[in-house]
Order: sequence, then C-alpha cells, then structure tokens
Amino acid sequence: MKVIELNKSVTEDNDEDARQIREDMRQKGTLLVNLMSSPGSGKTTLLTRIVSDMKDRLNIGILEADIASDVDAIRAEQAGARVIQAHTDGMCHMDALMTKKAMDEMGAEGMDLIFLENVGNLICPAEFDTGAGCNLMILSLPEGDDKPLKYPLMFQVSDGLVITKTDTAPYFDFDMKACRERVLALNPDIRIFPVSARTGEGMDELEAWLEEKIADWRNK
Amino acid sequence: MKVIELNKSVTEDNDEDARQIREDMRQKGTLLVNLMSSPGSGKTTLLTRIVSDMKDRLNIGILEADIASDVDAIRAEQAGARVIQAHTDGMCHMDALMTKKAMDEMGAEGMDLIFLENVGNLICPAEFDTGAGCNLMILSLPEGDDKPLKYPLMFQVSDGLVITKTDTAPYFDFDMKACRERVLALNPDIRIFPVSARTGEGMDELEAWLEEKIADWRNK
Repeated sequence: MKVIELNKSVTEDNDEDARQIREDMRQKGTLLVNLMSSPGSGKTTLLTRIVSDMKDRLNIGILEADIASDVDAIRAEQAGARVIQAHTDGMCHMDALMTKKAMDEMGAEGMDLIFLENVGNLICPAEFDTGAGCNLMILSLPEGDDKPLKYPLMFQVSDGLVITKTDTAPYFDFDMKACRERVLALNPDIRIFPVSARTGEGMDELEAWLEEKIADWRNK
Repeated sequence: MKVIELNKSVTEDNDEDARQIREDMRQKGTLLVNLMSSPGSGKTTLLTRIVSDMKDRLNIGILEADIASDVDAIRAEQAGARVIQAHTDGMCHMDALMTKKAMDEMGAEGMDLIFLENVGNLICPAEFDTGAGCNLMILSLPEGDDKPLKYPLMFQVSDGLVITKTDTAPYFDFDMKACRERVLALNPDIRIFPVSARTGEGMDELEAWLEEKIADWRNK
C-alpha cells in the first residue's frame, strides 16, 4: 500500500481540474465515487463489505484521504481492493487537484470503480468538486434523523445516501420516515439505501445501484 | 430565543479577539466552554442533561452555532438555559470575533457557565481559538475508538473529553482502554469522562469537574 502526502492546492481553477479528471475517468471507463460522511459513520466498514461482495466481478480501488493514520487503508486492502492512502496535511476536504495527484499515483487504467474516501466532515467536502462522477453520502443511524436540517448542502450535492448501522436501530430514536422526508425535501432525485454492513441487510440494492451507475457512466 | 446571523470574520487578529473575550469573561466570572465534536455525537442531549441537573445552582447559557436550523436551540431552551442560536453562514467553525458578537447578544453578566456548541466538525474548530476558557470535546461511542489516530489535533487542544452514549456499548466494538491510551498519548493532561446522558451514568463526575473549572477560572 502506498502512502502519499498531499498539500493544499491552488484551487483557483478547481472546476477545470475536476472537469479534466472526469474526462480522463470517462475515457478509462472508471467510475470515481466521492464518499463523504461524518467521522465514525462506518465508511471503511461499508467499503470493505462492498469490496468483499463485488471484487470477483469488478476491479475496485480505494483512495483513503485522512489527516493522519492509515488504519482504514490497511482494512480496505485486506478486503481485496487496490488502496492508496493520502494524508491531507490537516486539510479538511479533498479538492480536484489533490484527487488528480492521487489518481495518477493509483493508476485508474483497468479499474471499474474507485472510491475516494473523503475526509470525515459533513461541511467542507460538500463545497469542493473533486472530479468524481458520483457523490455518495453516508449517514449513520446513531448520528440522528435531524442531520438533513443541520447540514443541508451535503444532502443536496449527493446522488446517493447510504444510511448505515441499521442493525443498531433498537438503541436509537431514529425516525427513518422523517429522515427520508427531510432528505427528499432537499434533494428529490437522491437515492436512499438503508444498510447494515455488519448483517448485510440492504447491501444488494446498494451494490446493484453501483453497477447501474458504472454502466450509465460508460454509456453517457 | 434569539437567532443571529454570523458571517465570516476577518480573522487576522483572531488571537487578540480571543484574548479580549477571555479577559471579559474573567471579569464577569463566567466560564465559557467551547464544546466540539462530530455531527451526531450527542452534544445537545448532553447539554440538556447538564442544564437539567445544574440549573438550580448555576446560571447556564448556551450558544448554539449551526450552519442551519434551530432544532438544538429549542431543546436546550426547554431544559432551562438561556439560549442564543447563531447561524454561521456555511462556515465550518466558530472563530473569536463570531463568538464575541454572540456573547454580546447573549449578555454574559451574571452567568456562571456558557457553552459554545461549536459546529459539528472534528477538524476546523480545533484550529481556531474561540476565546473560551475551556475546550471540551465529545466523542460518541458509535464513532469508534480509532478517532484519536485520525483527528489528533482535536484531542490535543481539549482540556476534557466526554465519551457519550456509553449505554450503547453492547452494540459497538468500542475498546475503552485502547481509546484512553490513544487519547492520553496525544494529551497526557486531558480528563476523560465516559457518560450516558440517557441513563445518567458518569454525569456526576463530569458535573463536579465543571464546577471545579468554574472555581478555578474565578480564582486564577
């Protein structure tokens, strides 16, 4: 596993950098998914489950962006993904130039699906286009059903929302119906997937959607 | 309950603004506690419990800083605190000038303890001195025991760490001993309080420590 250090980019032309990444990924037939969430939402557990379930039919890469540590990267690599660990030098989000450098290190050629595991933060990552073809947000059930009210932009910029840790429902007062309504009021087109990566509940629907997204990306 | 809009400050002299706030709070005998955590860590539930438990012997104020919504402020006010809701105009953290404006709106005179409920974010708030006399961090048990490895600065700048939602322990693989060791390796002076605001477990120790902190602040 490679560890790279990424420093703050000159983000003046972030949109142009993002456009170039998308063009490059489209040529390679690789869907880059920008995965965003709070710290501790279960991103790595979800990804290791997806990799285990799908690795026989897809080549999957993971770019782990963290301020420090490589604990997530080690777990994801053990599950069977090609993994790059990026340290963001304290930065609270990934931007397009940082993503580009990391994609160059990884080598996207021949990959079907690459997850950019963004820094755990519900605010700053929503403001920067990373060049991904799809934004996927995670909300874990213990975080509460009021999060759409408090962090609206993140829900607005996402194509899909995975609600994780559904197996812990007996322990939390999480109103799934109210949460869905709040999310759909912000973003009527978002797809919502309640899952438990631990028990596997809901994973089939999420994985089928990811395969659809790859096919759509290649046919666009 | 008052709702105020705070825009990005000129933060060039953030340290000077922070110093002025501390001086003002010391003259008034008010301890300002900067409460920082991830989204969904249970900040508001913890605060409403503290207010309920301590309101008969302390005047408590709460400054709720959120990007949007006033759901937390309403709950905190019902518990018996003086509450100001601040909207941060998308900003991912509070700085000293924003805090100063909010303190002016609240009127700290005669208050014993004011909590600044910072924006839910483990990264950016750790980088800005708000002028508080005490930094208190919350880590909820569902977030996982690896967070000190991934967000070290937040643990380093905090005087106290409250580990919330301990009543959900049967549902999560949270290693309390490993977490403590990781936190203390970053910050040997931090005080750690495992609590459940729901059952009340551990609240006495935390509240006694807050009273000590108020007394220390007034005697400094």
